[in-house]
Amino acid sequence: MIEYKDASSEVRAVFDDIKRTRNVPDVNNFWKALARDPANLRRTWESVKEVMAPGALDAVTKEMIYLAVSVSNGCGYCIASHTAAARKAGMTDAMFGDVMAVVGMANETNRLANGYRVPIDPAFERA
Amino acid sequence: MIEYKDASSEVRAVFDDIKRTRNVPDVNNFWKALARDPANLRRTWESVKEVMAPGALDAVTKEMIYLAVSVSNGCGYCIASHTAAARKAGMTDAMFGDVMAVVGMANETNRLANGYRVPIDPAFERA
Amino acid sequence: MIEYKDASSEVRAVFDDIKRTRNVPDVNNFWKALARDPANLRRTWESVKEVMAPGALDAVTKEMIYLAVSVSNGCGYCIASHTAAARKAGMTDAMFGDVMAVVGMANETNRLANGYRVPIDPAFERA
Amino acid sequence: MIEYKDASSEVRAVFDDIKRTRNVPDVNNFWKALARDPANLRRTWESVKEVMAPGALDAVTKEMIYLAVSVSNGCGYCIASHTAAARKAGMTDAMFGDVMAVVGMANETNRLANGYRVPIDPAFERA
Amino acid sequence: MIEYKDASSEVRAVFDDIKRTRNVPDVNNFWKALARDPANLRRTWESVKEVMAPGALDAVTKEMIYLAVSVSNGCGYCIASHTAAARKAGMTDAMFGDVMAVVGMANETNRLANGYRVPIDPAFERA
Amino acid sequence: MIEYKDASSEVRAVFDDIKRTRNVPDVNNFWKALARDPANLRRTWESVKEVMAPGALDAVTKEMIYLAVSVSNGCGYCIASHTAAARKAGMTDAMFGDVMAVVGMANETNRLANGYRVPIDPAFERA
Repeated sequence: MIEYKDASSEVRAVFDDIKRTRNVPDVNNFWKALARDPANLRRTWESVKEVMAPGALDAVTKEMIYLAVSVSNGCGYCIASHTAAARKAGMTDAMFGDVMAVVGMANETNRLANGYRVPIDPAFERA
Repeated sequence: MIEYKDASSEVRAVFDDIKRTRNVPDVNNFWKALARDPANLRRTWESVKEVMAPGALDAVTKEMIYLAVSVSNGCGYCIASHTAAARKAGMTDAMFGDVMAVVGMANETNRLANGYRVPIDPAFERA
Repeated sequence: MIEYKDASSEVRAVFDDIKRTRNVPDVNNFWKALARDPANLRRTWESVKEVMAPGALDAVTKEMIYLAVSVSNGCGYCIASHTAAARKAGMTDAMFGDVMAVVGMANETNRLANGYRVPIDPAFERA
Repeated sequence: MIEYKDASSEVRAVFDDIKRTRNVPDVNNFWKALARDPANLRRTWESVKEVMAPGALDAVTKEMIYLAVSVSNGCGYCIASHTAAARKAGMTDAMFGDVMAVVGMANETNRLANGYRVPIDPAFERA
Repeated sequence: MIEYKDASSEVRAVFDDIKRTRNVPDVNNFWKALARDPANLRRTWESVKEVMAPGALDAVTKEMIYLAVSVSNGCGYCIASHTAAARKAGMTDAMFGDVMAVVGMANETNRLANGYRVPIDPAFERA
Repeated sequence: MIEYKDASSEVRAVFDDIKRTRNVPDVNNFWKALARDPANLRRTWESVKEVMAPGALDAVTKEMIYLAVSVSNGCGYCIASHTAAARKAGMTDAMFGDVMAVVGMANETNRLANGYRVPIDPAFERA
């Protein structure tokens, strides 16, 4: 991982933008690891910054969806970091419980739909 | 798949509860397929009914999380049915676009975290 | 896909062994597709033949595990082919229902364990 | 995680039922973690209890399928807990080896079927 | 899906850049579908354009890795489109066979490593 | 795990072949774990040996595809072992960065294709 003091000016510029945008004193390990490939770091940060900015969905909803996908995929780092991010954005214990319940249920019924080879209802095609 | 007219009284009771709860004239193919195993049908419906009822999260947020997981898992039936359900619960085109963008980004960064073997930040452990 | 009449002698030898081992008049599309790469066809068949032969587990149990994994992965071809194979090996409707219920439940609790970041019980380490 | 001595009466009732049903002195960490959301705890336990009771399939077969799915999904906690549960239900070393071999083979051929885009055999549609 | 003649100037600018970069008369359905969300279309194209340009790896190697991931994930559209893209970039039948064999083997051994809970060799930590 | 000095002659024969083929003083933990099931050990090694030998693709390309799949699947052991193997075969830091970027992008666009339910272009069917 590359710390700020050891970073090139290209990497420092990205780290500075992350710190400014998120109002944090240091960047997470994720960004320090990606800094080994400055072009990948910059592109990934620009995409994350754009996607996670409040839009049609607010910040906490976006973070809960990010968490839901990370839990479903079993990415340990991402579960830890996006649980923290979602809490910071306003996710309560009760909201966390609801996210987990929906993720669990979706993973169950996704497989039941696969296994029973359910044909798509014509009504859904028009959605 | 088992249609209402061919269903046992046990299956009909579940179908009736689905139609009443969702205020729909007929149940989706998913439930007609599950009806081959009445105990599985009943248990799955009771769980879905409980989990998807508005709680700490409202109906449209729950449906968008369900959709996000289904898209991430690549379940064709579930993507179609929960896109329809989320739209019915209030998801606009712009909200759908945001869900897709977050799901895509989460799937990308989940793998970057895996591949760079990023150690979990101590700060996340307290979240 | 490569049909028997168009196959090289190397491919025909594998097709003949599949037909003899399974006592079927023709091989499935899976093998006809793999026949584009004869070395891959031969190696895959030899592995499948060895793994799926009755051993500590009987044929129907092996086929149900194969089906369970295929349903969990969402592989359409494999779900269709291994549902057929499991039925041929003795899987009843009730057994199929049980497989689906277990696959669904495992996929749900796998995600709950991920999301709640449950630490492994010391007792399990000795298993 | 919530220990029995710190649990509400609602949570204790579920813990008591788990201990009685499984004849164990304490519940696993999984249930202690879920206890943060008592409704989710209760519903998940009731589903697991119903699904894992011997039915058309016996207990060890169900546990091996649960293990197979958990291995395929890469859920560390679930692999550890269901290896232990399957062994307790009678899975021998040789049976464990067979489960692993089938899970590995299924994951390999699932991808070969995807990559070669194999069309489903008409014979499977009738299964 | 949005065709060029019905597209806004913002979408047309992206479509024009795709056609110019790839030297094709029209864009694939993927881009026409994404055009429903112009910001998502633009950001995704800019990332794909940057990532898939020859760098430390040449075009055909990048396309084969893209294909390998898509096959492993079971994304039907992506398997079809990246098989075509890899062939256009120089993937022969023999190379395709090798990609499939490696993807199959990796998916098998990934699960064996999970199921046997293999501890990471100290030598790998220094890689 | 089974060490060489405790291994049966059947297991030793496989270990010897691994050491000879790879020119290493000892086998990795993966093989020591699989040695609990000698038939599975032998079959897996023979398949890996055949698949990973240079063919239409060279060793480093095969290892990078193996790594890409392992990262996408989130197999911790496999990511560590195949990062080491790919580096030994010649993968530079820049090549590693390119592999990660492609794996991340493929995982993102796989989900966008799923979520937008993109129909396959007729041109791809002929590839």
